[in-house]
Amino acid sequence: MLIVAALGGNALLRRGEPMTAENQRANVKRAAIILAALIAEGHSLVITHGNGPQVGLLALQSASSKDGAFPLDVLGAESAGMIGYMIEQELASLASHKLFATLLTQVKVNPRDPAFAHPTKPIGPVYDEATARQLAGERGWAVAPDGDKWRRVVPSPRPLEILEVSVISYLVEHDVVVICTGGGGVPVIARKDGSMIGVEAVVDKDLASSLLARQLKADMLLMLTDVDAVYVGYGTPDARALGKVGATELSGRDFPAGSMGPKVSAAIEFVEATGNPSAIGRLEDAVEIVKGRQGTWFEA
Amino acid sequence: MLIVAALGGNALLRRGEPMTAENQRANVKRAAIILAALIAEGHSLVITHGNGPQVGLLALQSASSKDGAFPLDVLGAESAGMIGYMIEQELASLASHKLFATLLTQVKVNPRDPAFAHPTKPIGPVYDEATARQLAGERGWAVAPDGDKWRRVVPSPRPLEILEVSVISYLVEHDVVVICTGGGGVPVIARKDGSMIGVEAVVDKDLASSLLARQLKADMLLMLTDVDAVYVGYGTPDARALGKVGATELSGRDFPAGSMGPKVSAAIEFVEATGNPSAIGRLEDAVEIVKGRQGTWFEA
Repeated sequence: MLIVAALGGNALLRRGEPMTAENQRANVKRAAIILAALIAEGHSLVITHGNGPQVGLLALQSASSKDGAFPLDVLGAESAGMIGYMIEQELASLASHKLFATLLTQVKVNPRDPAFAHPTKPIGPVYDEATARQLAGERGWAVAPDGDKWRRVVPSPRPLEILEVSVISYLVEHDVVVICTGGGGVPVIARKDGSMIGVEAVVDKDLASSLLARQLKADMLLMLTDVDAVYVGYGTPDARALGKVGATELSGRDFPAGSMGPKVSAAIEFVEATGNPSAIGRLEDAVEIVKGRQGTWFEA
Repeated sequence: MLIVAALGGNALLRRGEPMTAENQRANVKRAAIILAALIAEGHSLVITHGNGPQVGLLALQSASSKDGAFPLDVLGAESAGMIGYMIEQELASLASHKLFATLLTQVKVNPRDPAFAHPTKPIGPVYDEATARQLAGERGWAVAPDGDKWRRVVPSPRPLEILEVSVISYLVEHDVVVICTGGGGVPVIARKDGSMIGVEAVVDKDLASSLLARQLKADMLLMLTDVDAVYVGYGTPDARALGKVGATELSGRDFPAGSMGPKVSAAIEFVEATGNPSAIGRLEDAVEIVKGRQGTWFEA
């Protein structure tokens, strides 16, 4: 079965944990054990991942440089190289019989996407409100609450097309495990002459993974995070984990934009376009989720 | 003809030029015009590139971070993502009928390589001697003269094997333009269990490109830099540019380690292993070099 498996940023770096190379590698190793188990079950994997904490850190590092801060598209490409490298290396050490490819991925977005005027995607470290507001003033950032803390937010336009999808298809046909669409892919827009140029934004990696899964006609879209299922009434006494649901059942429901919202949208879009299932659940449960025994399943 | 084309760090960023994203992109654009001309001539390209200035800058940025400096293997992967992204984007805008893949590349080195005890590869910005020595003391760097300035130097072990070569071959067979082995590839060593782990080093990109060209059985290894040919007696009144030379003719000659030395070694190793030609010359002359009308040609 061809599975597009999307690793949440929180699966790669736990909330609040210092973003040292050692911590990143320890978390990647933990994820690699799970991904290797899916490979051992005989599945073909295309692995995508978030980059929120990482691209934010690289932005801070780059802003400290006398040569001027790099734009977000360039930083996104850096973060995809860094995270993809660690995933490939750790996973290859557990599945050495497979070939791996970590591929830079560009994703086309609409320059008139309303997201450019309304930044919502949190990146980088968390701050208290006062520090966040101060940094916003100093650096021209937009900032917004994220849980009980504050973070920088950047535009998150809708992904329209994964540019490297033919290449990814070739590699999947050759039984290569592909790591791609890191951080949702580097967002690009078409110029008048049809050529592409990067833009200052971060695409939601779940929506981009759903698009990729549709373009690849994958058998399943699997979104792995640090929560065991999608809940209705999350945080209330009536909270209820969802098991198997019809894709259309949840279309009307409201999920918070920062957490399950994009995942639920990504799942519904994939199921409606392909008729194949999508699931959301905890990284550690991945093998059981694919068997339909854990997580929330979306079906046609 | 399948050409492995290696872009020198100086082809991507002119000496002394501030390493802003804009300057990097302007230089990449200049290189892309030349590479597009090679594609228009009907050649299949595998493009490699240096990362000396870039990985040095990322190391400086990372050292400024409270989460601690990232190791050189991780920074190398970042730089490959960044530079590969810009090359792919600029080249695709000039050759939109082709497919492109920017691939993270790991290169196996020997943990007992004597280079680990004798760092020689310059990375990052240039300093005056006093500043370089001060930074060496503060940060534990090794530093060494580079022309009339000083720079940080890091170990540069010999490349033994490009790990992703099968994947690169598949892509070349599918007529994809591959951008890989950025910065010479991320250096890795084999652990006792056979799995790979990154090490703190930067592999020479010309030697790595030669290895890649041999593993791919390329028709030509082309090394593009900012000098029009290999000179004997460079910097003396008797300086003489070399045109066509037999690979064995230069084996005994001494070329400075920082400049033409690795390029000449890379050319000789490729020609002796494959019987196919290798050439060294100026980026702008690439089309004429491939036709044998410019640069220094190494033949069997």
